[in-house]
Amino acid sequence: MKTPAKKRLGRPAGTGNAEATRERILKAAMQCFAKGGYTQASNKQIAEMAGITSGSLYHYFGSKAELYGAVLLNVLSTLVEAYRSSALKHEHSVDKLCAGLERVIIISSEQPGLMEFASMAHGEVQRYPELNELLSNDHQEFYTFFIELLSEAHQQGELLVPVEAAVHTLIACTTGLSLIRSSLEREEQFANALRAFQSLLRGAFFKQN
Amino acid sequence: MKTPAKKRLGRPAGTGNAEATRERILKAAMQCFAKGGYTQASNKQIAEMAGITSGSLYHYFGSKAELYGAVLLNVLSTLVEAYRSSALKHEHSVDKLCAGLERVIIISSEQPGLMEFASMAHGEVQRYPELNELLSNDHQEFYTFFIELLSEAHQQGELLVPVEAAVHTLIACTTGLSLIRSSLEREEQFANALRAFQSLLRGAFFKQN
Repeated sequence: MKTPAKKRLGRPAGTGNAEATRERILKAAMQCFAKGGYTQASNKQIAEMAGITSGSLYHYFGSKAELYGAVLLNVLSTLVEAYRSSALKHEHSVDKLCAGLERVIIISSEQPGLMEFASMAHGEVQRYPELNELLSNDHQEFYTFFIELLSEAHQQGELLVPVEAAVHTLIACTTGLSLIRSSLEREEQFANALRAFQSLLRGAFFKQN
Repeated sequence: MKTPAKKRLGRPAGTGNAEATRERILKAAMQCFAKGGYTQASNKQIAEMAGITSGSLYHYFGSKAELYGAVLLNVLSTLVEAYRSSALKHEHSVDKLCAGLERVIIISSEQPGLMEFASMAHGEVQRYPELNELLSNDHQEFYTFFIELLSEAHQQGELLVPVEAAVHTLIACTTGLSLIRSSLEREEQFANALRAFQSLLRGAFFKQN
């Protein structure tokens, strides 16, 4: 896709609900990228799945890289929001985290392709130069969430390890868990892995001596 | 580097200790790849650090991709061996894993560049087509180790979650932990993260309700 003139971006004339169309495109693109990867997913295929013409895709996204970036932002926001909203309903940090992981299990089963997309994004963004700039601040939101949650846990005497080390460890584990989705055949295996991780957080993974 | 004729590979005539030279090249290459990545590390730089001429590098490795593959295999073997040898000294699964993680901390500080290399390898191997084939069986060794360890833990009543889920979770967490090394400034931060993960395994990360 070439970048169209600026005035063509945004809501095209005569479209009833541009926001709904944009959502449909993002959903279709997420599934196509998850299935075929960044290079194999075609604009034609994405437009067809979204029920629009390839031409009108240009009204919404100036390039394939821009579309990929919008999907990535959407996916990361969905995941951070899953943790944030779940955290509000619980008092203890470990309950907040486990509720967030349960929410991710639901999102993963309700939105096919979302975790597969997230799983592959780490590699895709590094592989293609035009996607490199997307790395920027997107992961920062996860860091912010974990820093806030674990600092509070520390203040309340719930955290038994240093805050900084705890942040790095949880970022590493949750990143690793999102990466494995694409190597697992069944949704259930992913859910089971996230539940085993909850047991790890609760000290109920190994029988303690 | 072009692939030289087969007969030139292996021990060159007149070299005293070809095995020692090969080891020096692997060590130098690991540090250069860890510092500059696959594309930026040059044969000249690697040869200089290993104390040989660029020309004699051809005697040992037919191409840069082949050299990268040899370093990757070496790094993965070193890490799996760290877990395996540590495991032999302990009875309980959680002690085996924690001893392995402590061994990785020592290896990481004693062999500069090793964890940085491992940390970047995941992305590098996906990014460059000539490295793609290296993905193959290398990670299989880690799977085998975790399957054996966790099956035994299950049989001895030490594991409180299903074996398959436990394997996926530990593979995910240890992969994630190796990935963060390159984003951390100090060796100490990496050691602290691995120790916090040991606390997670021991149920001593969060105060349990």
